Amino acid sequence: MKRVITPILFLIFLVSFGAIGKDHPSLILTSSDVKLMQEGYGKSPLFRTNVDRVQRELDAEMQRPLAVPVPKDAGGGYTHEQHKKNGRLIMNAGVLYQVSGKQKYADFAANLFLKYAALYPSLGEHPKKKNQAPGRLFWQSLNESVWLVMAIQGYDAIYKALDHRTRQNIELNVLRPMADFLSVGQPKTFDKIHNHGTWAAAAVGMTGYVIGEDDYVEKALLGLDKSGKSGFLKQLSLLFSPEGYYAEGPYYQRYALMPFVLFAQAIETNQPERKIFEYRNSIVMKAIYTTVQLSYNDLFFPINDAIKSKGLDTMELVSGLAIAYGMSGDNQLLDISARQKRVALTGGGAKIALARDAGKIVPFQFKTMKLSDGAEGDEGALVILRSSDKPGHQALVLKNTSQGMGHGHFDKLSWIFYDNGQEIITDYGAARFLNVEAKNGGRYLPENKSWAKQTIAHNTLVVDETSHFHGKWKDGQKKSPEQLAFDETETIQLSSAVMRGAYEGVAMTRTIALIKDPELEFPVTLDVLKVDATQPHLYDLPVHYNGQLMDQSVVLKSATSGMRALGDKNGYEHLWLKAVGTPKEGKLARFTWLTDNRFYTLNTVSEEQSQFLFTELGAHDPNFNLRREQAIIHRIPKGEKTIFVSLLEPHGDYNPAVEYTLGSHSQIKSLKLHKRGSYQAITFTTVFGKRWILTLSYDQDKQKTHQIKLGDKEISWQGFYSLQTVE
Amino acid sequence: MKRVITPILFLIFLVSFGAIGKDHPSLILTSSDVKLMQEGYGKSPLFRTNVDRVQRELDAEMQRPLAVPVPKDAGGGYTHEQHKKNGRLIMNAGVLYQVSGKQKYADFAANLFLKYAALYPSLGEHPKKKNQAPGRLFWQSLNESVWLVMAIQGYDAIYKALDHRTRQNIELNVLRPMADFLSVGQPKTFDKIHNHGTWAAAAVGMTGYVIGEDDYVEKALLGLDKSGKSGFLKQLSLLFSPEGYYAEGPYYQRYALMPFVLFAQAIETNQPERKIFEYRNSIVMKAIYTTVQLSYNDLFFPINDAIKSKGLDTMELVSGLAIAYGMSGDNQLLDISARQKRVALTGGGAKIALARDAGKIVPFQFKTMKLSDGAEGDEGALVILRSSDKPGHQALVLKNTSQGMGHGHFDKLSWIFYDNGQEIITDYGAARFLNVEAKNGGRYLPENKSWAKQTIAHNTLVVDETSHFHGKWKDGQKKSPEQLAFDETETIQLSSAVMRGAYEGVAMTRTIALIKDPELEFPVTLDVLKVDATQPHLYDLPVHYNGQLMDQSVVLKSATSGMRALGDKNGYEHLWLKAVGTPKEGKLARFTWLTDNRFYTLNTVSEEQSQFLFTELGAHDPNFNLRREQAIIHRIPKGEKTIFVSLLEPHGDYNPAVEYTLGSHSQIKSLKLHKRGSYQAITFTTVFGKRWILTLSYDQDKQKTHQIKLGDKEISWQGFYSLQTVE
Repeated sequence: MKRVITPILFLIFLVSFGAIGKDHPSLILTSSDVKLMQEGYGKSPLFRTNVDRVQRELDAEMQRPLAVPVPKDAGGGYTHEQHKKNGRLIMNAGVLYQVSGKQKYADFAANLFLKYAALYPSLGEHPKKKNQAPGRLFWQSLNESVWLVMAIQGYDAIYKALDHRTRQNIELNVLRPMADFLSVGQPKTFDKIHNHGTWAAAAVGMTGYVIGEDDYVEKALLGLDKSGKSGFLKQLSLLFSPEGYYAEGPYYQRYALMPFVLFAQAIETNQPERKIFEYRNSIVMKAIYTTVQLSYNDLFFPINDAIKSKGLDTMELVSGLAIAYGMSGDNQLLDISARQKRVALTGGGAKIALARDAGKIVPFQFKTMKLSDGAEGDEGALVILRSSDKPGHQALVLKNTSQGMGHGHFDKLSWIFYDNGQEIITDYGAARFLNVEAKNGGRYLPENKSWAKQTIAHNTLVVDETSHFHGKWKDGQKKSPEQLAFDETETIQLSSAVMRGAYEGVAMTRTIALIKDPELEFPVTLDVLKVDATQPHLYDLPVHYNGQLMDQSVVLKSATSGMRALGDKNGYEHLWLKAVGTPKEGKLARFTWLTDNRFYTLNTVSEEQSQFLFTELGAHDPNFNLRREQAIIHRIPKGEKTIFVSLLEPHGDYNPAVEYTLGSHSQIKSLKLHKRGSYQAITFTTVFGKRWILTLSYDQDKQKTHQIKLGDKEISWQGFYSLQTVE
Repeated sequence: MKRVITPILFLIFLVSFGAIGKDHPSLILTSSDVKLMQEGYGKSPLFRTNVDRVQRELDAEMQRPLAVPVPKDAGGGYTHEQHKKNGRLIMNAGVLYQVSGKQKYADFAANLFLKYAALYPSLGEHPKKKNQAPGRLFWQSLNESVWLVMAIQGYDAIYKALDHRTRQNIELNVLRPMADFLSVGQPKTFDKIHNHGTWAAAAVGMTGYVIGEDDYVEKALLGLDKSGKSGFLKQLSLLFSPEGYYAEGPYYQRYALMPFVLFAQAIETNQPERKIFEYRNSIVMKAIYTTVQLSYNDLFFPINDAIKSKGLDTMELVSGLAIAYGMSGDNQLLDISARQKRVALTGGGAKIALARDAGKIVPFQFKTMKLSDGAEGDEGALVILRSSDKPGHQALVLKNTSQGMGHGHFDKLSWIFYDNGQEIITDYGAARFLNVEAKNGGRYLPENKSWAKQTIAHNTLVVDETSHFHGKWKDGQKKSPEQLAFDETETIQLSSAVMRGAYEGVAMTRTIALIKDPELEFPVTLDVLKVDATQPHLYDLPVHYNGQLMDQSVVLKSATSGMRALGDKNGYEHLWLKAVGTPKEGKLARFTWLTDNRFYTLNTVSEEQSQFLFTELGAHDPNFNLRREQAIIHRIPKGEKTIFVSLLEPHGDYNPAVEYTLGSHSQIKSLKLHKRGSYQAITFTTVFGKRWILTLSYDQDKQKTHQIKLGDKEISWQGFYSLQTVE
């Protein structure tokens, strides 16, 4: 498969279009990558399968006439999808040409390019342009950046197979005008610190490397004025937190990752002296690893606008993984690759395939971690607590982050709970059916705003039936939670954060702890939500749960022949009120549901008289746009300073296949809240006679000693909290 | 592991308690089975794992004091569960003694037996006895039969390890009194043609073989009076249809199977001259194979009272498979064994494990079939249509069966549709959470009667908002559907059946066909339901679907801020009326939903003006006993003779992970019903321009020619139906 070129011929070839000193391919692929891929094709069944699949797709496409239509349609329409596809075809044809040496692939990519060379110069703004940042081939310039990122990889790959005239034609009529358009042609987008800016920078910079235009590279790296106030390096500095968390959340982190890793790889290839992978304490690698950590059972945490089926097998992470493995050779990454349906057709991808075939997989270590948010790490944090790194472990996702811009939800201090491979306490994610034309053209549905973003759609406090920041995300951008404590020991993992100003005059402090009692089957989660307000309010704390209610300790008044919506705005209009429960046993209420084969008992206690509203999603949903989900809302009709305490306990095993049911009853006997001035103690006892005491001083000074009296018992501790047991 | 016993000693041993001429074990196990199991333990990692697991359980139990409590509790309670467990422990200890030769297991089983010998003679009727057929150890004698079936296997296994006095004690104080109690002590149950009778016969007959009491064997085989009018052989003749279908449906078929296969095996071992496995054209083997066929993606079809998670991994089928494989060596059965979590600790189980380890698995052939119902095969049929035998195939289950006694549902001619590994058009199954104490003690919930059994809970015709036979199962027993046609070709699989008398003066004839058009992605299902009534009625035809509604062609009037129950009885009281739809395009209505990654479009057309009611389950459900499911009910407010035509088309691929959605639109352009006297033609056209014509004469004479005119076209065919295409 290797091509032989005599040295003299090679030199003539190089000088012919000013590419002296520059080899091709030299962007995502280099000649040593190509060798690796050829080795992979020969030795690795896995890699060969991946190459063969792309080859089959391409061979099928090459049977059809080339289609480079005049731009007409918006996203999802024919011309849009065709141009998207052409970008991918050019890239794949280039890769296949390199791997196989077959001229037909280079010819195919070149012919597609020539069609674009004939079309592109004639184009003005796209007829379906969106208000901001229209493209030419596409309705948004974002799609055009993506196209160029793909196509330039193909161009790099077939470069040596083209004659001077063809190159000149393509560069003058497609690559340069497009790079100009994406940079100087749309300065606001190009210089914006935003993932659209990153795509544009990557497209322009990668083009610069391939055609030898340093000006493009400089602008891409440092901004149009080359000052460094914008551009790729600045984006790397500002768009991720120091731990590699992206403010919009995992769904968009996964999307944003692509131009970062591709352009970083291109920089590494062409300007290794920039040490781009070491930049900002290796932020690119951190971003890749963090993306993986932001998942449970292969699916990304669905916070903010997120399609819930997105997970580790996403194409962006296939690329990201190949680049990360190519750099690090970390065999943990093979575990993630094994959860993906494909490997990237790059040198890193070949390395992954060879290593997987050689059985080098090491389990990826999913960890308990606090990922600070904000460029400086001072805009709250996303906290992940995990009971272990094994399949089926418990994971808690605590959303103590910043707003996350326009795709952010109004869900300060909300949480998600996973167990046994499933989402148990759930986040709705986005109201959207991606690309399903009948559902608002596949775009976000109206219910995304009216329901999915609203506070009541999340597992956090709603005050006076309104959403945080009155549902205005620009207001939300101004205030973030403060992470007060984060601790991890053998027995307890604890996070505490305070949010001030989501509602005027209201501060909420939420402490969530995962506690392991070896006598209990599974760890339990204790949730202490302290609300400090300067005047009385109606408080609602929903728990959106996935499962079938089995038992509850409240007196139920259920809707039988008629059911009403709970409210008329802020998301409440979408909730049917199925039942109202009043606690029987003082202020303790217990709810048990069954999810899959496991029971979950939620014990709750509060200071004030409470109601429990059992709701079902689907009111004011005339077009069946919402999924049918459910919640139990802990309501305190009139509270000021108050504290909600909940203990969630997984237990038992429901196995109708083998006809046994074990442990369908909670092993928690009691749950109590004790207030001592500004301190609190939460106690709970198990059926085994053990009594746990969690004390909270909220004092960040770790040296300071605190003391309270519980009954006859003096309890003292140092710092923010303590966890103690009495047998 | 082999025990060596000198011949003389052996002889003395045999004569000591009248067991001359009889070897032990000699029931489910024989000495050659024991050799096979010892070979399996040595050679097969799979078999060893299974033995080791049972051994671990047993070793743990043997650490505890023996617990043989005085009977007190009903099902689910302590004494009930403990006695159940003891029966299993005795059996397992016996098996382990045989496999390992370790005396401690024989001792353990013997000691348990001795506790029972001390207790059992003192027992009268159980204090929590049910009205009919109370037990002594258990509230129902059924449990006592099951106990003896287990324990006698253990006794047989440890027989040779016991001295004369011990045997005498056990036989005189436990085995004989229990066998007497289960036979002459409860003649009505023992002689009943019912699975309770089969359990009793198996218990008594197996005991007879082991202790050498021929009288027990004769009674078990031929009934108390030994006339053959009842007993095991009669049960084999009457409880299964000629194809091995059990009238109560798969859920109870699986349960009923156990005593049949165990006792049959015991008969084969002790009286091979009876050729029990050849009896009634090998009905025992047929019943085992049919049980397997009554499943999709490892779960049993959930018709009648059925827990939906029951499937091929059920213990009964683990035993059944071992016996069937031991007899036949059919390697298809290994495929089913591989879907189970364990193999039986028998000779057959060892054979299975050795064969699986040797890679002899052959895919089980799931087939299209008509299983007649009734002892004579003349009480309707269960029809299964399958698009292929591959995973993810389409399967249709057509319930043209008899009532199925007290656990039967009122769902004549109902259907279930599976595709892509999932149940798409669903059957609710039973309203029950097995063994969950908080849910009515784990028994059937009140909603099993008020909802799950009612006709509206199924995918079949409801007349005047009442259930078939007014919901009286004894009336239902008297009338069964008549299967009119069943055909299978490359292009079409078709079933047609008529039900007369589910409602007075109403006959319904349902023809369902699975049609393969190679231009379409997937086969489509055509459903023609013809109703003949002598006076006007309100007709409701529900489609209970699993998925999220994507699109529909009717004008929707949706409940927004309030929702009402659809009715007040016969199951209607449990349905919330979410929306009412009126067809836009004449009498054609289309509905598209998304299930997992695939779209389903239901096209419907009828002669009369129709409404479509969109319902959600959950009204009048104060204790959250019902799952939240949904239906579209095709309602004809006033019809007499009428025809409902539906075409169900799976299509497309929704893949948000890779961000594409293909084929979200139906590829069916039109669907029409043409009436020509008593004939009908249904035509539908595809987007590829093909027109399909299904004609129906309903004439069972295959030779007779029929002719109609459709527009200009003369169409003629022979027999019941024809399927033709026009390009």
